[in-house]
Amino acid sequence: MTDQEQFLAAASLLLGERGLTCDPELLQPWLTDWRGRFSGQAMALASPATTAEVSALMKLCAKFAVPVVPQGGNSGMSGGATPDESGHAILLSLRRMNAIRRLDPAAREITCEAGVILQTLHEAAAVENLRFPLTLGGKGSATIGGLISTNAGGTQVLRHGSMRAQVLGIEAVLADGSVFDALVPLKKDNRGFDLKQLLIGSEGTLGIVTAATLRLLPALADRAVLWAGLESVTAARSLLLHSEKIAGDALEGFEIMPRHSLAAVLAHVPGSRSPLQGAHEWNVLIELAADAAGADALPNLAQTLLETAFEAGLVEDATIAANDAQAEQFWLLRDEIAPAERALGPAVQHDISVPVARMAEFVAAAVPDVESRFPSTRAVAFGHLGDGNVHFHVLAPAGAVRGEWEATDGKAISAFVHDLVTQWGGSISAEHGIGQLKRDELGRLGDPVQLAMMRAVKHALDPGDLLNPGKLVPPCT
Amino acid sequence: MTDQEQFLAAASLLLGERGLTCDPELLQPWLTDWRGRFSGQAMALASPATTAEVSALMKLCAKFAVPVVPQGGNSGMSGGATPDESGHAILLSLRRMNAIRRLDPAAREITCEAGVILQTLHEAAAVENLRFPLTLGGKGSATIGGLISTNAGGTQVLRHGSMRAQVLGIEAVLADGSVFDALVPLKKDNRGFDLKQLLIGSEGTLGIVTAATLRLLPALADRAVLWAGLESVTAARSLLLHSEKIAGDALEGFEIMPRHSLAAVLAHVPGSRSPLQGAHEWNVLIELAADAAGADALPNLAQTLLETAFEAGLVEDATIAANDAQAEQFWLLRDEIAPAERALGPAVQHDISVPVARMAEFVAAAVPDVESRFPSTRAVAFGHLGDGNVHFHVLAPAGAVRGEWEATDGKAISAFVHDLVTQWGGSISAEHGIGQLKRDELGRLGDPVQLAMMRAVKHALDPGDLLNPGKLVPPCT
Repeated sequence: MTDQEQFLAAASLLLGERGLTCDPELLQPWLTDWRGRFSGQAMALASPATTAEVSALMKLCAKFAVPVVPQGGNSGMSGGATPDESGHAILLSLRRMNAIRRLDPAAREITCEAGVILQTLHEAAAVENLRFPLTLGGKGSATIGGLISTNAGGTQVLRHGSMRAQVLGIEAVLADGSVFDALVPLKKDNRGFDLKQLLIGSEGTLGIVTAATLRLLPALADRAVLWAGLESVTAARSLLLHSEKIAGDALEGFEIMPRHSLAAVLAHVPGSRSPLQGAHEWNVLIELAADAAGADALPNLAQTLLETAFEAGLVEDATIAANDAQAEQFWLLRDEIAPAERALGPAVQHDISVPVARMAEFVAAAVPDVESRFPSTRAVAFGHLGDGNVHFHVLAPAGAVRGEWEATDGKAISAFVHDLVTQWGGSISAEHGIGQLKRDELGRLGDPVQLAMMRAVKHALDPGDLLNPGKLVPPCT
Repeated sequence: MTDQEQFLAAASLLLGERGLTCDPELLQPWLTDWRGRFSGQAMALASPATTAEVSALMKLCAKFAVPVVPQGGNSGMSGGATPDESGHAILLSLRRMNAIRRLDPAAREITCEAGVILQTLHEAAAVENLRFPLTLGGKGSATIGGLISTNAGGTQVLRHGSMRAQVLGIEAVLADGSVFDALVPLKKDNRGFDLKQLLIGSEGTLGIVTAATLRLLPALADRAVLWAGLESVTAARSLLLHSEKIAGDALEGFEIMPRHSLAAVLAHVPGSRSPLQGAHEWNVLIELAADAAGADALPNLAQTLLETAFEAGLVEDATIAANDAQAEQFWLLRDEIAPAERALGPAVQHDISVPVARMAEFVAAAVPDVESRFPSTRAVAFGHLGDGNVHFHVLAPAGAVRGEWEATDGKAISAFVHDLVTQWGGSISAEHGIGQLKRDELGRLGDPVQLAMMRAVKHALDPGDLLNPGKLVPPCT
């Protein structure tokens, strides 16, 4: 038997029929990322049912030097869960490990296995009149393991932080198959390095997250959604500071979108209409939210916010959603920007952040910078102003050929945008991660000291480079 | 010239007269920790004035293989800033680096050098009607660098988290002298491993923190302090859950103390008196606090909390401090427990945590466990119930000799307590860190997988073991 045959025989014995397959038809759906931008090969698909099985499998992989590509819902944005072309790796699906091990409503803690889907977590929390505050578009497929491994963001980060802030404890399998067991949540623990922080956001390159304990919050009892029109991102930033002052912890979301994006959405979504009478250079969506303790005060708070914003001359026009259906319509206008822009033609998208205080200045400078350097393109920034995180899209000139344009001009534009962001002290990946999509850009633009630290830590914890090779950590040049 | 002479000559040239001294009189105060429990020797005291100087000095140390013991206010609890007896190391004081580099009131961010004293930070924030939410007894000497390196706690952790939660960005010098520059705060950044998390709480073993960007909060506008008497820690836990439900984010502190501790304080502090008429097995101090946005609602909230707690039978008796002077008196009773217990005779103290949900059960079991295993001792637990963190003191039998008892029986008791805590899934260091005090206990009781990870990371980032050797990271056995 070859080494590969020996490995597969042992893995098959370990995991059984449900746990291991080499059937190309069964592998096929998982070898390409959901947006169809990356695809690869794998020698097998492993679907262990327990942490002990993941551990034993990893020991086997270490023995036979077989690389492992962990995968959750396969809904990542950066190709972090797609294997390379070599076919040397196994694809390790965590989807079978989907038990909720424990839910403690009094302590507001839930312990989930890695394969639990975000929507399932939301539903489990809701049963106890609690909520898990992180949510995003892919909630129907994204898994807890994937969300932790990518430190996922979403629209609620402003108030509640990204996935990192929700994680109280972690269980993970390391490169040698040993189990890192730090699931028990201690609010205070000062026994040295906080190793779980290393695993969060490491995209499976340092360990395979198998379970986590997450914090829950009291369920929302009420929300108020405001829409404002104003003249600039600078004005939007003033409105943000004002909203923080008036609404404090009730401020749950603060999204901006330019005139062009709103027009694109209105043209794209049948029956949609603008919340305001006239058109404005910039639009802001503000969400205030409160649990039972603060719900009574919320309508007044929203009204006060609106009135004081008018008085202070912070908005050109503004309105409050009259009911929940209208609030949903406001959010739909925000959520449909990406599809609406895509319908207009080819585009390259950038998930970037700069310091919140510099965001207005950045957008004001970067948009004309890009448009003048690449004639006939249109640059559009929208998204999470409160987090200093905008999605920066550059739309192709009319007549550009989809597929071709992104691979040529689009690539040059992305490099230009990443250069700009780096000059502004920002990040080339605010929330989507690095994966294989941005690994080389991180190598090109990352701080050499931090890259050296990353490589040293990666080598220390995975000396054989078995965990998700080719992702995240740029090689030495 | 010997190597040491060459090193000192080069360091002296680099740092100048104010920056380097070998004068034993100038060194002496810093060679012993403030509680006099650890002392050591150093070949020199370096006091660089800038990050560039720290970097150049560290390069020199790397070249000559000179170990470095970083020191802030020398107010740590675990001997983490005291050199060993060999005299091979230099003591690196960060106290001269005490500039506030930037304060941005709108963004609520402050960038401090490592030597800024906590109280100075509090005062700088107050000028802008802001506050830094972490505070502790040593605030007049503790420095930002030390607080970050030890991930310090305090009485406000319940609401605001420990030091880790306040840090937005870090600047640090690594073992090879390179500068880790991640001071610019990005609310969202997913470019791989969050390396600053490794430096926080690493007690100077992975890098020397030279500056940090910290978050600030709106200043407090009002507070309400409640005192309750009840029968058990279980009852206190019910009151905690009730308080979280009623007061939500306004709940700022929740401290417990047993009858014995209160009696000791009342005997120890002249003129002090109990807030309640009768004596109760357990006492609880609750602090509610609000900024300007929530101040109006606070008195009602406190009243509601009190009334509903009575109605639900959660307290035997309770009262609200009538004014700020009385609130201070309530807090004094809590803050004087440690000195009052010390006045009673020798004792060993343990800074431990267990999962919040298990704290009541732990105290109920551990106190008789210890007292029956070590006859005539008295075990006392008090402190931060809301964080699952109690200070667990064991008082010596009458007649025990101070100094002698701690080193013999006291040591056996500590090992017993640490064993217990470990069995309960807790931490042998909730907030004071490991330093040299608990390094061997961590080696004895720590999870072997996590110890191996710590050693691997330490070796990867400091292969010459130059950064604070002998602290925190237990050697292989």
